[in-house]
Amino acid sequence: MTWIEGAAGSGYDVDHLPLGVVELPDMADRTGTQVATRIGAHVLTLTSLAAAVRTPEDVQPALAARDLGPLLAAGPSTWSRLRAWLTDLLTDATHRDDVEPHLHAHADVRPILPFAVADFVDFYASEHHARRAGEIMRPGGEALLPNWRHLPVGYHGRAGTVVVSGTPVRRPYGQRRTSEPDRAGRLATYAPSRRLDFEAELGFVVGPPTAPGTRIRPDDLSEHVFGVVAVNDWSARDIQGWEYAPLGPLLGKAFATSAAAWVTPLAALEDARVELPPQDPPPLPHLAVNGPAGYAIDVEVRLNGHVVSRPPYASTYWGPGQMLAHLTSGGLPLRTGDLFAGGTISGPGEDERGCLLELTHGGARPIRVGSDERTFLEDGDEVSIVMTASGALPGSRLRLGEVAGRVLPAD
Amino acid sequence: MTWIEGAAGSGYDVDHLPLGVVELPDMADRTGTQVATRIGAHVLTLTSLAAAVRTPEDVQPALAARDLGPLLAAGPSTWSRLRAWLTDLLTDATHRDDVEPHLHAHADVRPILPFAVADFVDFYASEHHARRAGEIMRPGGEALLPNWRHLPVGYHGRAGTVVVSGTPVRRPYGQRRTSEPDRAGRLATYAPSRRLDFEAELGFVVGPPTAPGTRIRPDDLSEHVFGVVAVNDWSARDIQGWEYAPLGPLLGKAFATSAAAWVTPLAALEDARVELPPQDPPPLPHLAVNGPAGYAIDVEVRLNGHVVSRPPYASTYWGPGQMLAHLTSGGLPLRTGDLFAGGTISGPGEDERGCLLELTHGGARPIRVGSDERTFLEDGDEVSIVMTASGALPGSRLRLGEVAGRVLPAD
Repeated sequence: MTWIEGAAGSGYDVDHLPLGVVELPDMADRTGTQVATRIGAHVLTLTSLAAAVRTPEDVQPALAARDLGPLLAAGPSTWSRLRAWLTDLLTDATHRDDVEPHLHAHADVRPILPFAVADFVDFYASEHHARRAGEIMRPGGEALLPNWRHLPVGYHGRAGTVVVSGTPVRRPYGQRRTSEPDRAGRLATYAPSRRLDFEAELGFVVGPPTAPGTRIRPDDLSEHVFGVVAVNDWSARDIQGWEYAPLGPLLGKAFATSAAAWVTPLAALEDARVELPPQDPPPLPHLAVNGPAGYAIDVEVRLNGHVVSRPPYASTYWGPGQMLAHLTSGGLPLRTGDLFAGGTISGPGEDERGCLLELTHGGARPIRVGSDERTFLEDGDEVSIVMTASGALPGSRLRLGEVAGRVLPAD
Repeated sequence: MTWIEGAAGSGYDVDHLPLGVVELPDMADRTGTQVATRIGAHVLTLTSLAAAVRTPEDVQPALAARDLGPLLAAGPSTWSRLRAWLTDLLTDATHRDDVEPHLHAHADVRPILPFAVADFVDFYASEHHARRAGEIMRPGGEALLPNWRHLPVGYHGRAGTVVVSGTPVRRPYGQRRTSEPDRAGRLATYAPSRRLDFEAELGFVVGPPTAPGTRIRPDDLSEHVFGVVAVNDWSARDIQGWEYAPLGPLLGKAFATSAAAWVTPLAALEDARVELPPQDPPPLPHLAVNGPAGYAIDVEVRLNGHVVSRPPYASTYWGPGQMLAHLTSGGLPLRTGDLFAGGTISGPGEDERGCLLELTHGGARPIRVGSDERTFLEDGDEVSIVMTASGALPGSRLRLGEVAGRVLPAD
């Protein structure tokens, strides 16, 4: 039990210890950015702490960095030692005087994107989402294509436009199909998107680089992935619908992807592990899992403060270890900071759909948002996604870092 | 005219001056990597040269770097001053004593990937390629989809697996569709690719970063793109064919993309500019061009030393300025080192097809390669792509940096 008051029940007890990078408000205190963790209502700056107290030999240099890169690259044994060191400092009250100078109120610091995103791959791992999106995007066609149950279908997104939670997102311009050709015979127009959407996703942050030829087994996820972040993969459905055949989405997705500022370690999610849904046909051997390969993470999507969806991550067909095994199955190397996400999280229920495309049946049925209605996002709308999961302490719920953002009008 | 002997007619006269980064062989001379250019049979190391002679104020720090990043970021006025400075040093023989200590035989240096690739976007800009590939990948369907003539269709490739010319490329494992389900009902198998292919492409290297919201006009290409590199976008057609619907290619392309070590400045290609092929329907206003927006670059693809294709880049439907305008049309920011390519370069002729998929009609008609035949690449095969274009000097042909690589067996 931690000596920090108010940590119990806050979502940020010692069984969580998410990592991020913050800027401090007071320029006099400021020694650049700080690697940090959250405990109760506080942010604990680890760069300054590690410079002041005895720190495990491999942990110290990893915390003396401008972002999480060196720590991610250091790998699982360093991650474990960091966690044990922090747990000791925060549970043994004799360390109080050492630790307290490095505590800040959460509201007083500014989190930034905690690592440089190397390559970003977005999968499409929820069967409920893939099936419904297929019905809407390809009416009359096969909703779930024949490859879908054989491999986690995915594509590369744009790494350079991953932004930290809180960053406003401007409505993009783009081409969309028109119902009638114009006088020049053109079937498209260029204008601000009219079908702007969110997608509630869970992202996985890769740690050490791998050598070319390294093929990762699904059960080895935690050797290669440090932790998870909530992700909002903003999507312009009209732009996406026109551009995506046959090479996949480009500008309909590339304008912005928001990620939470705090990375929850996989080590904190051991108690949230669950079996994957049944997989039929059985995955090929290189994608087969042993034991619980999914995570029971509850997702709550709020639009302008009103809950519009509660998709359960546990219903996702393909597990993250399978996504990573597929990604590396050809032998491609990973880089520190590679980010992969599982695509929109959707459950079977009407109120478990992780994007407006599904919630509104492709815009055909508006949903209630407080006293308003929405089909797609309007300027000024704020989307916030919060995820929770069981922690290791009795009765504990971890509150993963929120991912939030407001829509700015096209300019 | 340069005082360097043998430069005239070599493809590397003073009207070319491509940039790269090399490692020097002699550890005694070695002061880390060197930014460099090519002149005749020589490589001129610019990092050492700029440290030794008078150098324009903005050029010097850009050359004191480990790669081309700072120079790319510096923008067009610095690029021009670098070019003028180099031209003066190489044409005025009074500089001979200053320059000669920094000349090395080309064979004596080891070029490395000259810049960190930020995001990699691959378009699909050749109508001849898109139409033939469509016929082969989607038999019975529409070869050219309705969006194709309205926007340059493209997707994000993997930035982390762009490798420099000369790097061997290992045949990837992956899933491909089988003709019959196995006993577990699976329609796929996991094995080394049997349909490994090359794609001859031209890549464009982005210079300064842009602010979010910056929409680039097609005619402003040379303000934002420093230069071009020959690219081989290795492709595993069996993996790609199974995985690519509906989100586009992932592992069939992500195992390796080779790029030439030498970046030819757009400034050297002014004499190669040509009109684009007729575009029907006319592009929407934000994609419209004025004047010559294409490049007459001749491409020669050799397989094990035998020429198998000569596709003309001038036949490419979408110009690079249009690709860049489309990419930024939603307002997404560019980063220094963003790389975009136009996809397989194919002309109308049977011998102008830039990949084996087209040359062999999807593997149905083997081609002759010397005394051998090929449908797709075999282990040990070497692919080399050389591009040439008119330079500014009378009768001059620029020889763009070659992109070459050998296929290693799956392991």
